[in-house]
Amino acid sequence: MPQTLGRTRWVIAEGFIPNAGRGPSPQMESHETMCVLNAGTADAHLKITIFFTDRDPDGPFELTVPARRTRHFRFNDLPIPRDTDYSSLIESDRPVVVQHTRLDSRLADLALLSTVAFPAD
Amino acid sequence: MPQTLGRTRWVIAEGFIPNAGRGPSPQMESHETMCVLNAGTADAHLKITIFFTDRDPDGPFELTVPARRTRHFRFNDLPIPRDTDYSSLIESDRPVVVQHTRLDSRLADLALLSTVAFPAD
Amino acid sequence: MPQTLGRTRWVIAEGFIPNAGRGPSPQMESHETMCVLNAGTADAHLKITIFFTDRDPDGPFELTVPARRTRHFRFNDLPIPRDTDYSSLIESDRPVVVQHTRLDSRLADLALLSTVAFPAD
Amino acid sequence: MPQTLGRTRWVIAEGFIPNAGRGPSPQMESHETMCVLNAGTADAHLKITIFFTDRDPDGPFELTVPARRTRHFRFNDLPIPRDTDYSSLIESDRPVVVQHTRLDSRLADLALLSTVAFPAD
Repeated sequence: MPQTLGRTRWVIAEGFIPNAGRGPSPQMESHETMCVLNAGTADAHLKITIFFTDRDPDGPFELTVPARRTRHFRFNDLPIPRDTDYSSLIESDRPVVVQHTRLDSRLADLALLSTVAFPAD
Repeated sequence: MPQTLGRTRWVIAEGFIPNAGRGPSPQMESHETMCVLNAGTADAHLKITIFFTDRDPDGPFELTVPARRTRHFRFNDLPIPRDTDYSSLIESDRPVVVQHTRLDSRLADLALLSTVAFPAD
Repeated sequence: MPQTLGRTRWVIAEGFIPNAGRGPSPQMESHETMCVLNAGTADAHLKITIFFTDRDPDGPFELTVPARRTRHFRFNDLPIPRDTDYSSLIESDRPVVVQHTRLDSRLADLALLSTVAFPAD
Repeated sequence: MPQTLGRTRWVIAEGFIPNAGRGPSPQMESHETMCVLNAGTADAHLKITIFFTDRDPDGPFELTVPARRTRHFRFNDLPIPRDTDYSSLIESDRPVVVQHTRLDSRLADLALLSTVAFPAD
């Protein structure tokens, strides 16, 4: 099993949690997710910094991804206002891989987007 | 806080702003967005060049992302015709991270796409 | 024809197969796909490891992409529970290129996401 | 204007043109697009090779992107069967940037996906 799979600094420049959502919660609630894989044999400790348009960054918020586990964190669970543009910086003490996904259920059906985050180191 | 997070030259090869959109404006209007994070401690000055299929490029258009801020710019606010293929080149005097998103509301529901832009340096 | 096109280790940090799907099977069934191109002249042998939130990884599952062929594998065909967060690591003995796609048909219409996987070597 | 922006070899591992599409043609017809930016001052000559699951590759198909222009090519215009898995390799004699997009209009509404192609050199 690889010990050093991934990077230690990731950026998700896009960020926006729609306020409304019609689907049944929680699966169909509009949400943004940061999927993190820690393929290594030691826990990874993450620090998440949230950037905004018109005020200083918030955080860092601390999260842990145990060894050989994946965690799909919802940005909805961080103190981020809805209907607001933001970006996020993810710093980890161990190499991880980060992918960004949004589910938007403001209208009758849902829409999805996803991209691998930008590896900044 | 990182001083040199990102790159100084980014490309979004896909570009197309649908003319029609059924949702309530402005959130649900069909639009294309360039999300830019400037995690550094100095303002970043961007020059945006728009490429077309059958005529010379337009621009550069100048935009600023203040230090430690994110800006989600809509291409709709630049002089780009609707229902027209284009590409964009983003050049910055400071490292930034760029992600591209489109919301398409031509039909009853919306569709989304997103990808990190191509880091060209 | 290139002999060494791609990488030998790829990560898809996002993974989630919706349990429900309204469209006609199999095209419209909710599914996640790993599209793999082997542009080389020798077969590529893949080992897929699936990571979860709360238990040890599963696998490796073995798949083959013949020389000069593409294979679009559905994660639905691996022993992965539905409505469950996971990540995947793809290791190949020959360079390949991997792209990740999900079709979600839980509601009346479908939603799509796609991104190139993260090249981890 | 940059002379060497991009790469000369790109891969789109995902490929699938849905046979059905309900929207008004041609904008709403289900299609897959390869968006190519040539920011340089000389024309770029592309060779496109299409890979399949169960037969030898097709091509190369030749396309040109004039200097300082973008072209959004539809894979629908190449001899690719519908409802069939494929991958594509794009080789260019000049650096370009390639992004992949699909519009799927099989159901009442449309779905979109997009990602920067994999830069293979």
